[in-house]
Formats: sequence, structure tokens, C-alpha cells
Amino acid sequence: MQQQISVITLGIADLTRSRRFYIDRFGWSPVFENKEIIFYQMNGLVLGTWLEKDLMKDMNRHSDGLASAHALAHNVARKEDVEPLMQRLNNAGGKMLRPADTPVHGGFRGYVADPDGHAWEIAWNAAWTIDEHGHVTFGL
Amino acid sequence: MQQQISVITLGIADLTRSRRFYIDRFGWSPVFENKEIIFYQMNGLVLGTWLEKDLMKDMNRHSDGLASAHALAHNVARKEDVEPLMQRLNNAGGKMLRPADTPVHGGFRGYVADPDGHAWEIAWNAAWTIDEHGHVTFGL
Repeated sequence: MQQQISVITLGIADLTRSRRFYIDRFGWSPVFENKEIIFYQMNGLVLGTWLEKDLMKDMNRHSDGLASAHALAHNVARKEDVEPLMQRLNNAGGKMLRPADTPVHGGFRGYVADPDGHAWEIAWNAAWTIDEHGHVTFGL
Repeated sequence: MQQQISVITLGIADLTRSRRFYIDRFGWSPVFENKEIIFYQMNGLVLGTWLEKDLMKDMNRHSDGLASAHALAHNVARKEDVEPLMQRLNNAGGKMLRPADTPVHGGFRGYVADPDGHAWEIAWNAAWTIDEHGHVTFGL
């Protein structure tokens, strides 16, 4: 069994608002977009931001059956990169959930939610290697 | 800006139940585990399953501020692999959301939720390449 996630799809309310957050402020380039979805080619997987009503319909799911909490993380190369990125995302329609601090396992991190409430942990962790393609390897 | 997601963390209620789903039935091997979290090394990123109360505390978030819907996808190599895997996950405490069928953009896919309600799309899509490390590239 290949341990593999091919896509993460986030439900969004407004494509223009989400576009501004991810493209203009996070600084990513889309690989595909139309009137309901934007895809980003990430590090060995794809991120999709899709109008929530269409995602819910595709999943055959109704709002009474939503999932438990989740969080995504983006790791940066240097400790001093954490706070400026968090501030930039906060100013882009995000919401600061937890200012950056040092967790018990080390490193430095905080949380910002995107305009649809999806939490992003912005982290620096010297024990985790990130190669030139952005592929991340767990470390202790 | 590196287009990179380092971790996806899913909130879970019961580590034993989640372990059974992901390790015994999905067939994955953990890279780390303790009494509150299990990490899996995936294709260029890490998946974490963490007790939801600890995740919420870490995010400094309360249940009144949850996010929009989300879905994860796992792509298989052959069309005939989709339904047996969905059935196996359904029998492992998952919940069938949408039986597999052919979407307008082609391929073959359905949705199963894990025991905590996180939706997994199990998909076959000939236009998307997957290399030997499980790294997935968007295609049309």
C-alpha cells in the first residue's frame, strides 16, 4: 500500500476572496482554475480550493455530518520567516488564532486561519528536512 | 515562495479506533506514535492523527469556530482498485458517503469517511501521474 495523499480539497465560500489569500498573499501559482475551483501543484500532491456547496454535493454530504477539526502546516526555512508570513496572511483576510511561540518539542510556530476558517500552522522545525522540491521528511 | 504543505493533521476522538482504520485497514505504517498522536510519513509530507482536544488547544481554537468542509484524496493505480479499497475502509469503521462512479472530468471515484468524519476520496485518474515515491502531479 502506497502511503499517499493525492489531493487536499478545502471548501470555500468565495473564489475571489480565496484567490487573493492564496495567490496574492501566500504567493502561490495555480496550475488550473475555472469558475468553481482552483488547483495548486504542491510538493508531491495537489491542493484544491473548491466552492463548498460543490464539494459537499460531490461528497454527497450535508452540513449535519461535518468532520472533526483539521489543520494544515506550511514549514519555512528559517525561524525569522514565521512571524512575517503569519502577519501577511492575517492581513490578507486571515485570522490570527495563536501567535508564534515555542512548543515543547522545539521549533517555533503559530496558527492563522484562512478566510474560510481552515487553520494553517506556520512552522519552523530544524529537525524536519525539506528538499528543493518542498518534500518534507518527518524528524525528531 | 515554496508551494509546500508539510503536515495535514486530522482531529480524532479515539487513538485506538483511528489506528485500526489507518494502520490495520488502510495499510499504512506509522513513523512515530505516543498516547495522543500518530504520524505517518507520506508522499513528501506528513499526516498526523491527533486527539481533537489537543489539536484544538494547540490551535487555540474552540468548537464555535470550526472550518468549512474539506476532503482528502488517495489515488490508486488501477480503476479496479477503487471499490475494494472503499469497501475495506467502510468495513473498518468508516462510512460510505458516495459509491464510486465516473465524474464529468473522467476517471472513477467515490467517497468514504474515516471514523472521525474526515472524507477520503478514493480515486483512479489516468491523467494524473504518480511516481514511485507516491508524488502526484496534476494533469488534464
